[in-house]
Amino acid sequence: MNPTHIEHIGIAVTSLEESIPFFETLLGTKCYAIEEVADQKVKTAFLRCGQTKIELLEPTSEESTIAKFIANNNGRGGMHHIAFAVENIEGHLEEAKELGIRLIDQAPRGGAEGLSIAFLHPKSTFGVLTELCENKNK
Amino acid sequence: MNPTHIEHIGIAVTSLEESIPFFETLLGTKCYAIEEVADQKVKTAFLRCGQTKIELLEPTSEESTIAKFIANNNGRGGMHHIAFAVENIEGHLEEAKELGIRLIDQAPRGGAEGLSIAFLHPKSTFGVLTELCENKNK
Repeated sequence: MNPTHIEHIGIAVTSLEESIPFFETLLGTKCYAIEEVADQKVKTAFLRCGQTKIELLEPTSEESTIAKFIANNNGRGGMHHIAFAVENIEGHLEEAKELGIRLIDQAPRGGAEGLSIAFLHPKSTFGVLTELCENKNK
Repeated sequence: MNPTHIEHIGIAVTSLEESIPFFETLLGTKCYAIEEVADQKVKTAFLRCGQTKIELLEPTSEESTIAKFIANNNGRGGMHHIAFAVENIEGHLEEAKELGIRLIDQAPRGGAEGLSIAFLHPKSTFGVLTELCENKNK
């Protein structure tokens, strides 16, 4: 595999409203987008730091995997996943499968910011929930 | 605060030997350094991905905070911290203190790769163990 950079770090939060001001101060930059991803039952907020974005994720339903992550973390948020930017996400998924890596998504699906995304299972990635993503619109 | 980029992502692992080959495959690059940080009771391994490094952390003692993190995570590794590259780390710590952020390190100390580092407490940072680091040798 050959990611070009870390596209974003996903951070689970209980409230975007409460956490955005903190991350704006920490990163010295304004949140530039808020977007609901109905498919994943989350509301997301993005801030930039160099090549990488911080993606804050607030659950919109108790069924959301983010809500479950927070519940399993004593009601607190925290680092949730790392997303790597790749070219040819389909080829990367094929390679991952050949390497015996367990896939959460067998094929890319639509994520926030119009990206094509797919997750690898943390049981195959040393406990790190890993996302691959490609910007097919650039 | 005004970090320039994400310097590294710290990932706790139970074994460098077992995890390095996986991360080399995932990132399409070789681990370029292994270093023991006696102060933190860890052995670290570094790989690059764009502007950011992946820092794998294996505990060298049960007293290590990394060993405790793994024990609290059902014996598994996972994402441990985010480190932001800053200029003037002392000024950043001063600002953090003025903002009411709880500091783990009141003053910078020596970290891996000769960096000056300091941690902010996750209770003040929405559950994200946050490191500031500065390369004073560049």
